[in-house]
Order: sequence, then C-alpha cells, then structure tokens
Amino acid sequence: MLVHGKPYRTVWMESSESGAPVVRIIDQRLLPWEFKVINLTSVDEVAHAIQDMAVRGAGCIGATAGYGMALAAALEVDLDAAGLQLKATRPTAVNLAWAVDRQLAQLRETAPESRTGVAKQLAETIADEDAAACHAIGQHGLELIRAIASKKSPGEAVNLLTHCNAGWLAFVDHGSATAPIYAAHDAGIPVHVWVDETRPRNQGARLTAWELHQHGVPHTVIADNAGGHLMQHGKVDLVITGTDRVTRTGDVANKIGTYLKALAAHDNGVPFYVALPSSTLDWNNRDGVAGIPIEDRHADEVHWMDGLNRDGDKTELRLVSEGSPAANPAFDVTPARLVTGLITERGVCPASEEGLLRQFPDRAKSR
Amino acid sequence: MLVHGKPYRTVWMESSESGAPVVRIIDQRLLPWEFKVINLTSVDEVAHAIQDMAVRGAGCIGATAGYGMALAAALEVDLDAAGLQLKATRPTAVNLAWAVDRQLAQLRETAPESRTGVAKQLAETIADEDAAACHAIGQHGLELIRAIASKKSPGEAVNLLTHCNAGWLAFVDHGSATAPIYAAHDAGIPVHVWVDETRPRNQGARLTAWELHQHGVPHTVIADNAGGHLMQHGKVDLVITGTDRVTRTGDVANKIGTYLKALAAHDNGVPFYVALPSSTLDWNNRDGVAGIPIEDRHADEVHWMDGLNRDGDKTELRLVSEGSPAANPAFDVTPARLVTGLITERGVCPASEEGLLRQFPDRAKSR
Repeated sequence: MLVHGKPYRTVWMESSESGAPVVRIIDQRLLPWEFKVINLTSVDEVAHAIQDMAVRGAGCIGATAGYGMALAAALEVDLDAAGLQLKATRPTAVNLAWAVDRQLAQLRETAPESRTGVAKQLAETIADEDAAACHAIGQHGLELIRAIASKKSPGEAVNLLTHCNAGWLAFVDHGSATAPIYAAHDAGIPVHVWVDETRPRNQGARLTAWELHQHGVPHTVIADNAGGHLMQHGKVDLVITGTDRVTRTGDVANKIGTYLKALAAHDNGVPFYVALPSSTLDWNNRDGVAGIPIEDRHADEVHWMDGLNRDGDKTELRLVSEGSPAANPAFDVTPARLVTGLITERGVCPASEEGLLRQFPDRAKSR
Repeated sequence: MLVHGKPYRTVWMESSESGAPVVRIIDQRLLPWEFKVINLTSVDEVAHAIQDMAVRGAGCIGATAGYGMALAAALEVDLDAAGLQLKATRPTAVNLAWAVDRQLAQLRETAPESRTGVAKQLAETIADEDAAACHAIGQHGLELIRAIASKKSPGEAVNLLTHCNAGWLAFVDHGSATAPIYAAHDAGIPVHVWVDETRPRNQGARLTAWELHQHGVPHTVIADNAGGHLMQHGKVDLVITGTDRVTRTGDVANKIGTYLKALAAHDNGVPFYVALPSSTLDWNNRDGVAGIPIEDRHADEVHWMDGLNRDGDKTELRLVSEGSPAANPAFDVTPARLVTGLITERGVCPASEEGLLRQFPDRAKSR
C-alpha cells in the first residue's frame, strides 16, 4: 500500500550495491511517529527484528521468516540452525514455523549450488501468497461495500468501523480487515472508517490510522467506548475486523473489545464481518469461549502509555492512580451467532461449521 | 469517605482562626497525583473553583454553590450578583442553579442580621441532603450485593464492575454508583470492583480507582474493552453505573461506553443497575436515544493524554498518529430494556415508566 505516495510491502528482499543479499523491512516499532526502512543482513538481525517486534502480525512474520531463510541460504550458513533460531523468536506464531519448515523441506531436496536462488524464489512465493490471499479477501469484501454504496446517494460515503490493526502492516500487503476498505477506496467508492483506538496498546490509533492516512482513506479515530453510540445513530454501515483464530464453528478470537462491538452491531442491525486468510481457521476447536486460551498480558500496558510529548520526544506516562492494580486480558471471543459472515480468500461464508465446510470441503474430515 | 484513613467530604465550611468564613474543597484537578484541600475565601474563588473543575459532578457542584452563597451572606456582598456569578460558571449543571435559587429565596425572607447563620445552615442542609440521598442509595444497593454474597462461599468476593466516576468525588459523600459498594465493604461483605478506565478522560483510572484505594476497597483497573470478556467468564456478578440523565421511561444517559457494558451484561445474564438521586430523572423525556442531546467534546481529548512521566512530572502525550482526525462523543444512551433496575434514594425500581411512577407517584401528572 502507499506510504508518502509510494507503494510498499512490509518486507522484501534486494541485493545491495555490492551484490550481497539484504532483507528490508518497515520498522514498525517506530510507527506512527517515524517511517523508516531498515536493512537486515544476517539471520541474527532477522531473528532480532521478529523478536523485538520491528515486524509483527502473523502474515508479516511468516514472510519475514521466509526471507530470513533465503538470507541463510545465500550466506551459506547452517540452515537447520538458522531455522531453529528463527522459530525460537515468537514461539506461538504459527505462520513463522510454517514458513521456516517449508523452506527447510525444499532446500533439503535442492543441490547446494542452487539453494540461493531456490530459497529466494520460495521466500517471494510465501510473500506473494500472503499478499494474494489478502488481495482476494479485499475483492470479496469489496462486493459487500459496493452493495451498501449502491443504496446510498451518489458520493455518500460508506461508513465502516474496525478494531485494532488487521491492516497491511500485519501482513505483506493489503491486510485482512482493511483489504476490502482499500479495494473500495481504490475502486472509487467513497468510504469513511471509524478507527477504534484499541486500548491498551492503541494499535488502531497508531497503526490503522497511520495506514489509512498514508493511503488517503478518510477516517476518524474514536475511543473504544464510542462505537455503540455511533451505531445507535446510524453512523456505521458495516463492521469489519480481523481475527487471531476462528473455530470450526465460526467463533472469533480477536483483540479485546471486539465482542462488545459485535454486540452493538447485532443490537442495531449493523452487519459484522470478520476477514481472515484460511490459515487462521482452527479446525480442531468447536467452542471459542470455552476452548480458546486468552493471553493475560502485563498490567504495565494498562498503567503506562507511550507517545510523543509536546516537544516531540518519546515519553512514557502513568495513566492509572498509584496503588491500583490492573488486569490486561489481550483477546476476547465473539460467538458465531453475532458474526454476519467470514471473508476468506475463497469468498464470503456464514460463520458456522456448515458455512465453513461448504467453502473448505477438504477439511470436512478433520475432527 | 476515607482519604489517608481520615473521613472527608468533597466540600465543607469552616471558620478560619481569625473567625472569617472559609469554604474548603478537595482540589480534584490534582487527583489522583496529589491530594490537596484548598481554601475558598470569596465568591470569586468559589466561582473559579467550579468553572475550572476543581470541583465537578452534579451533587458536588450544587453543594459548593450552596456554600458559595453562604460565603456571600457572611461577607455581606450583593446576594443577587453572587448568585448570577455562581450560576454562570457551568450553565448546564441543574443542581448548581437549584442550590443558588434555594439560597436566594430563603435569604430574601430573612432579616439581614440573620442571613449569615441562615445561609450557612441552608448550605449544610443542601450538602447533608445530597449525602443522605447517596447514603440511602447505598443502603438500597447494599441489599442487592448482600443477596449475591449470600449465594457465594464465605469470604468469596462479590465482583462488581463500574464505568466512569459516579463516586463520592462527584457528590458530597458516598457517591451514587459507589455508594452500595462502600456500604457493602463497610458492612464486611467482601467486594472487588472492576474499574473501567473510561477513555478518553480516564475518570475511572484516575478518580474511581483513587477513591476505592483510599477507602481500602479491593479493585482492579481494566481497559474499557475488557468488561465483555470478564462477563463471558463469570468474573462479574453485578454492574452498577451512575447516570447523567434518566428518562421517564427508564432510558439511561451516561458516560460513553456504558451502553456497550449493558449489552454485554444482558448477553451474559449479569444484572445491570443504575444508581441515581431522583434529581437526575427527566420526567419530560420519553425516548433517550432520540431525545437526549449528546455532547461532542474536543478531539484533543482523544489525541492527547496527560499523566505523570517516569520522573513524576505532569506531561502531555500525543496518542494518535498525526494527520488522523478524532471524534469524541461524551455520552451514550442505554435503552431501558437493558437496565435491570434503578437504585434511587427511595429504593430499587424497574427501569420503566410504571416502575418509576410507583416509586415517585407525585410525578404521575408531569407530561
């Protein structure tokens, strides 16, 4: 997507002037206050970038790991050791291990002299597949937005609401929840996005707002408390969020607070869609509220906030009265009954086992 | 309630050592970072304290205005001019004009030489009435908490959730939503309070958390996003909020985000109560969502946050990506159908016209 008017992905590979391979990433630790592309020239640097969250988001991490293995092949370091090092950076991100293992499996069957080219090609394929899945999600979701726009006066914007960042920064390009929004904007359909700030880490106010601003999509940041009121007054036509895991039955785990927006959408007849590449489906889980473990993160994320002070310096601020403990559950589960539909790379389907199996019939036999 | 172990009200009157009258208030602009009682020795100082929000909250403002008029009488300044000056400070706060007019009406019928004593007595009465109404709310709400506690194991805490600050700082003492909590705690019933931080102004994280900590009530601050998840997992027994206005039909206007918690409570079978002195009832309004105007406040409250930096200095921080506008609706309306009951100084009643009229039969004839 566009940054300062120029198209970018979150991660890509180049040759330096000397011909040495280099992985380039947008350093997401600095956003939205600073846009900086940094070079990763060793497996150590790639591992550190993933671990320190210079890149984050399942799709983006997977692609970065793929490029990390391409770098390992080009530098002729021990591939198994490189794979172990990369996989150890964020042990829960399934895309990461998957990308590393896919590289290792292919490279084991490749003659040493061909490995550099083959590994780079596979890294490109992994990144392209992620971008293509998000692009397809965008095209399917675009039709939902187009249908709403067709019932409005010409030029009247379709109002969407999203929570957290399921944007292109979390993938290689397009994003999941944002893909239909970018597709509609690029197709000339007027859209306006209500961006939940998404406490406590403010991924909405920081990343989603930055993305949308860079790509020129009209949007307004709101406190997480505001969405229900906006829906009551007809100011939201459609909610689209991303997800961290969707059960076989269509229950949706996503950033804490998503469930509250789904309840408000349901109460006000606003369609509530969840966008995801099919890699996010958990075919072995039938009950999201009971079965998806929810990470409890550190209370400091509630107690403290960082940002820029009036002088433009990065500063941390205490928000909570001293002596008061805080709790910080990071995700919640939206029951399938509140989800109007799921938008995957294969199309839009009901958030139910039947709906999912119709779209993914090859998974009917998993338990 | 207790501060550093000593009982306080938000406002009271004393004589200085020289015998001059002085109104004393807790300066709420400094909370939770600093606890300071300041002296107001002229009508100008009282007006400034109200206008600059050193005192805030309907009950607290009304009582402060009552004391301001007592100060005017003691200082023998023009009472009508003092009344006009005080009423002009916060034109929308109904308790303020009501307290001033009540003083003026009585003082007009009082001989000049008796006015100092009479005005001081009436100011005490106004403050005592506010405290008594909140105390009564506490006693009625206490029974709801006691009933829940009776179904738990001995020593197991009743988990409450509240939004914003409807605490004693907003009144003279006890608060509205907090009154049942303090009453239960003081009665030896183990309680624990989930405190919504209440973005964007964080009255929960700052004021409610500070109040509860000072009074020794166990509590945990959470992001506003977290309540639904906690209710899904049985971690909330009861929600109690305050309100800025309740319609004749039981619709509840309160701090933005209250509606989302009411939806979650309803979805999970958690009782949702609203506590209010009857002065908050708007007998002329039958439809809260359509009929209660919602204040849109400045976007800066979403863009910026103030607090203490790591050195303990007050600092402002930019939270939102530059170039992204923000919207800031300050209240929302919870439809009566989501409200389990209203707790007033007369008892607990259904959130409906029938329920309210049974408790306030004298209002049956208002339109």
